[in-house]
Amino acid sequence: MSKFLNAKYQGLETYTPGEQPQDMQYIKLNTNESPFPPAPSVLDAINSQEIEKLRLYSDPECKVLTNKLAQLYGILPQQLYFSNGSDDILNFAFMAFSGNGTEAAFPDISYGFYKVFANLHGISHKEIPLKEDFLIDYRDYCSLNKFIVIANPNAPTGLTLSLSQIEEIVKTNPNNVVVIDEAYVDFGAESCYPLINSYDNLLVIQTFSKSRSMAGARLGFALGSTGLIDDLNKIKYSTNPYNINRMTLVAGEATIRANDYYMEKCKIIAENREYTTEELTKLGFTVIPSKANFILAKHADMEGKYVYEELKKNGILIRHFTAPRIKDFNRITIGTKEEMDVFLSTLKKIINERRQNENQ
Amino acid sequence: MSKFLNAKYQGLETYTPGEQPQDMQYIKLNTNESPFPPAPSVLDAINSQEIEKLRLYSDPECKVLTNKLAQLYGILPQQLYFSNGSDDILNFAFMAFSGNGTEAAFPDISYGFYKVFANLHGISHKEIPLKEDFLIDYRDYCSLNKFIVIANPNAPTGLTLSLSQIEEIVKTNPNNVVVIDEAYVDFGAESCYPLINSYDNLLVIQTFSKSRSMAGARLGFALGSTGLIDDLNKIKYSTNPYNINRMTLVAGEATIRANDYYMEKCKIIAENREYTTEELTKLGFTVIPSKANFILAKHADMEGKYVYEELKKNGILIRHFTAPRIKDFNRITIGTKEEMDVFLSTLKKIINERRQNENQ
Repeated sequence: MSKFLNAKYQGLETYTPGEQPQDMQYIKLNTNESPFPPAPSVLDAINSQEIEKLRLYSDPECKVLTNKLAQLYGILPQQLYFSNGSDDILNFAFMAFSGNGTEAAFPDISYGFYKVFANLHGISHKEIPLKEDFLIDYRDYCSLNKFIVIANPNAPTGLTLSLSQIEEIVKTNPNNVVVIDEAYVDFGAESCYPLINSYDNLLVIQTFSKSRSMAGARLGFALGSTGLIDDLNKIKYSTNPYNINRMTLVAGEATIRANDYYMEKCKIIAENREYTTEELTKLGFTVIPSKANFILAKHADMEGKYVYEELKKNGILIRHFTAPRIKDFNRITIGTKEEMDVFLSTLKKIINERRQNENQ
Repeated sequence: MSKFLNAKYQGLETYTPGEQPQDMQYIKLNTNESPFPPAPSVLDAINSQEIEKLRLYSDPECKVLTNKLAQLYGILPQQLYFSNGSDDILNFAFMAFSGNGTEAAFPDISYGFYKVFANLHGISHKEIPLKEDFLIDYRDYCSLNKFIVIANPNAPTGLTLSLSQIEEIVKTNPNNVVVIDEAYVDFGAESCYPLINSYDNLLVIQTFSKSRSMAGARLGFALGSTGLIDDLNKIKYSTNPYNINRMTLVAGEATIRANDYYMEKCKIIAENREYTTEELTKLGFTVIPSKANFILAKHADMEGKYVYEELKKNGILIRHFTAPRIKDFNRITIGTKEEMDVFLSTLKKIINERRQNENQ
């Protein structure tokens, strides 16, 4: 830190991305990436003709991409906003719709970045505890009179709220924006975006990172009333109008054309999730029933940290958290069937070795 | 605008990017892009293997790219910071190093975004007038005791400060950060980045957009003391850690390998600039002597708006400004020799037609 840093940022606790160790080739089940490559249409789209055009600025309005996705979702282009990853949208939403007397509220166990954004902008906020079974009680958010952010499915639990529960939250907070972060919605949950036509205070955030195999291209989007989308654009045009590069715009368009390819892959991941959940249960794990591309699981006898470390020694990365309520759990991203089988057989080996050591 | 927008952003005057009309094919001399495509190494680098990896997150630390550019510039990797275009760095610098009692200062005629950033973050600021000849008087900035941002070369004038003048500004403001925005430095000006080893308050910003033909890939970077770079990272890890996508990282690496290609193109652009300046002078234009990839020019008899509009009718885009002091000027990006010849002959045609109309 320099002596020049504005005092209000000096105490910031930043977000810690998942580890990306380079010492060996790991099976990566730690950052909720898709195990499947982008569709062939994406590979075709980023061709030499497009790369030659890199000398020219990208379209700040993302017109082609916006029109294509609006058509797929059956909404107006003015109800859509694209960004350089969905974190940028969350950041702008905290800026635009909280602070200045409006508090923020989000679950105590959720995407760790919500708290970081609130602190960055000096927004006072309330972390609402999940219930004992890790469920969000939607009634905690009704008539709350705060800026509300909820991930649905929630991370790292994978648990969901129903559409009617979300509608109740949105309906009972008419003077505040409610953000539903649907980063993981495509793996078996139901999107609430059709509600944007009925409620001007609902902002739905989705991303191409997970279900569309494009984490490395950075493309997130928001769906909401034209007023909310206008507000996000106001902040975008005051920070970085050309925030999405040409290659990602082109990749995004090709991705929308290949929608069936991606939805098929999501189905496979959901199947692998159910399979992994069953097999882990047989091995003595408690697994939270997830609708996302990850599961949160805890073993009856082994500490979360131990499972994480032993798997890492064996070339498999999962995500371990240190927060008290979830420190005995680990989050496991769902990969291909083959990857999950290696994961499960490695776990069996670890369990057996531990038993042998205990019996010695 | 929605009724939910935080009052502090409701009056924001956003930045207006240069026009990108789609009604016909224009010769684009309006947004300071390079007329030359990226080097062949960039086309090779963004191959199908890299595109398949888009399913994985990019490296938030940009390690490979950072090491490569640090080597080229002869500095430490810890003195370098990469971003999704240099606007992001300017935004972070305003957040980190001004406000909270520290005022900002920048020239009244310069990159229009400085004022937008100051307003976005509610930072009180002083716009220091350029001299009558559009020069920055460096003495206006000495011992100023404010956060200072100066573009060198300045935009849209193309005029420069000398290295010793910049050093004097940096030296006499030891308690504040001085940002030197060198977006256009590669076209004939001298970079002040070697001074970062002597002054912990100097932040130099450069970009791959202009001299490296990568406006559409979004890649900016800052050079400064490790403390200042730490501060920028603190804000990055509180907003969007994966802010640079994989394709741009790979394109950036290939660009650094092809440094000679780009520096050769910069020389050609500088030659075309001198040629265009001479020819415009013959046609009755006053041309500010520029060291950038653009020139600011005013005709003796024709209004700036008229020149801009007539050129547009003829398929050539240049940038017209409405600010009182420069409204009779236009900014003309330097393209290839062929483009500049079309531009000049079109101008001759416009001048002749006007004379004929006046004589009728």
